[in-house]
Amino acid sequence: MNGKKSWYIVDGYRPPENKGGAEDYVGHECIMILNCNDEEAHVEIDVYFPDQEPVKGIPYQVPARRIRAFRTNDRNVFKDLELDVGRQYSLNIRSDVDVVVQYGRLDINQDNMAYMATLGYSD
Amino acid sequence: MNGKKSWYIVDGYRPPENKGGAEDYVGHECIMILNCNDEEAHVEIDVYFPDQEPVKGIPYQVPARRIRAFRTNDRNVFKDLELDVGRQYSLNIRSDVDVVVQYGRLDINQDNMAYMATLGYSD
Amino acid sequence: MNGKKSWYIVDGYRPPENKGGAEDYVGHECIMILNCNDEEAHVEIDVYFPDQEPVKGIPYQVPARRIRAFRTNDRNVFKDLELDVGRQYSLNIRSDVDVVVQYGRLDINQDNMAYMATLGYSD
Amino acid sequence: MNGKKSWYIVDGYRPPENKGGAEDYVGHECIMILNCNDEEAHVEIDVYFPDQEPVKGIPYQVPARRIRAFRTNDRNVFKDLELDVGRQYSLNIRSDVDVVVQYGRLDINQDNMAYMATLGYSD
Repeated sequence: MNGKKSWYIVDGYRPPENKGGAEDYVGHECIMILNCNDEEAHVEIDVYFPDQEPVKGIPYQVPARRIRAFRTNDRNVFKDLELDVGRQYSLNIRSDVDVVVQYGRLDINQDNMAYMATLGYSD
Repeated sequence: MNGKKSWYIVDGYRPPENKGGAEDYVGHECIMILNCNDEEAHVEIDVYFPDQEPVKGIPYQVPARRIRAFRTNDRNVFKDLELDVGRQYSLNIRSDVDVVVQYGRLDINQDNMAYMATLGYSD
Repeated sequence: MNGKKSWYIVDGYRPPENKGGAEDYVGHECIMILNCNDEEAHVEIDVYFPDQEPVKGIPYQVPARRIRAFRTNDRNVFKDLELDVGRQYSLNIRSDVDVVVQYGRLDINQDNMAYMATLGYSD
Repeated sequence: MNGKKSWYIVDGYRPPENKGGAEDYVGHECIMILNCNDEEAHVEIDVYFPDQEPVKGIPYQVPARRIRAFRTNDRNVFKDLELDVGRQYSLNIRSDVDVVVQYGRLDINQDNMAYMATLGYSD
């Protein structure tokens, strides 16, 4: 096995991008997907909100034997869906082959950055 | 499956709210519960302490297909139970349908914030 | 089930206690054990090192329905064993009843604190 | 059981080493492997990238009953493979006996350090 087919990221929350004293870093969230298989992974992303119906089935691909990452402000991935800065949401990331998913957030809202990292949850 | 029915948060600890140099953030803890099911989740929260009997069965609801979050100083949730700043406690979060639970803490006790994030533990 | 009987903390490392600009916090590591059972948990702690044989079977108790925590500089727990500041070690925490174990570190080596938190690993 | 035989670290990323105001710490990543068995663990490390084929089978040993750690800029481990600062990669750590794997990163890109810690993922 090379991971799982369904992963949950509960605490999605976009930090501001350019506030604070950071010179080299930009505040962001990043979803990283590792595909150790010899086939491409066809991924679908469902986005859940506190106060509206989920947006389901956003497509994403990870080539065979690659790690690929996207930021949550990437309109090539999320297209019509704008995940606003400061709004809570969750992700369910579903793949047709086993993958491993990790989430990272870098917050530079103050003069010094704060990191947050969690593995996704899989069952 | 969309998660588990029982989750543990071991390290509950409320940071001070307004100390330090933060302008945009308030020190807090937050419990986030993702319900990907088509039924409402009826949740019960048990609070464990170092030195007294647990307080059990605090009710909370998460609507179908929603992420909901509460802070540990929310008296609408905890009602008579005051979780004091600086006191250690643990939570067991039990649901009648599968959910995924994550915990976050933002500490602004000093001039710059410190993040802490963990998935709950489920068995 | 209320957790597991064996937990691993891989990255044990005591930070300095009083360096940096912290006024309210003391640099420390903390091991937190949640016992939701109606019986006392009899715990044994094994300490592993990079370059010497492990020290095994340090006893610890967690009363029924309680969360208990100890710091790694607590000589009441570790007695003859001094875990030096800045030395790498790992812990295996074994209990006769199911418990949940979390690890936290607060580093104040610089002017602002840095948090680190992980669940233990259980199998 | 003393862990698992295969672990994934998705978010590998080397921070700069000497930037920022840190005096006592050097920015780094560290992989920690705990071997609680009575036999030596023969480990092989596979490194995955966003844009090239993986480098597989880098050998590493952990003696019986020891915790061992290596930094990702350690050329004794990675030999010909230079993991560049600021480049994304992932690791699959495979062992012939059960081990537990944790990942840590210390970023001192700004005046104050930021910690990141996760258990590896095992299946």
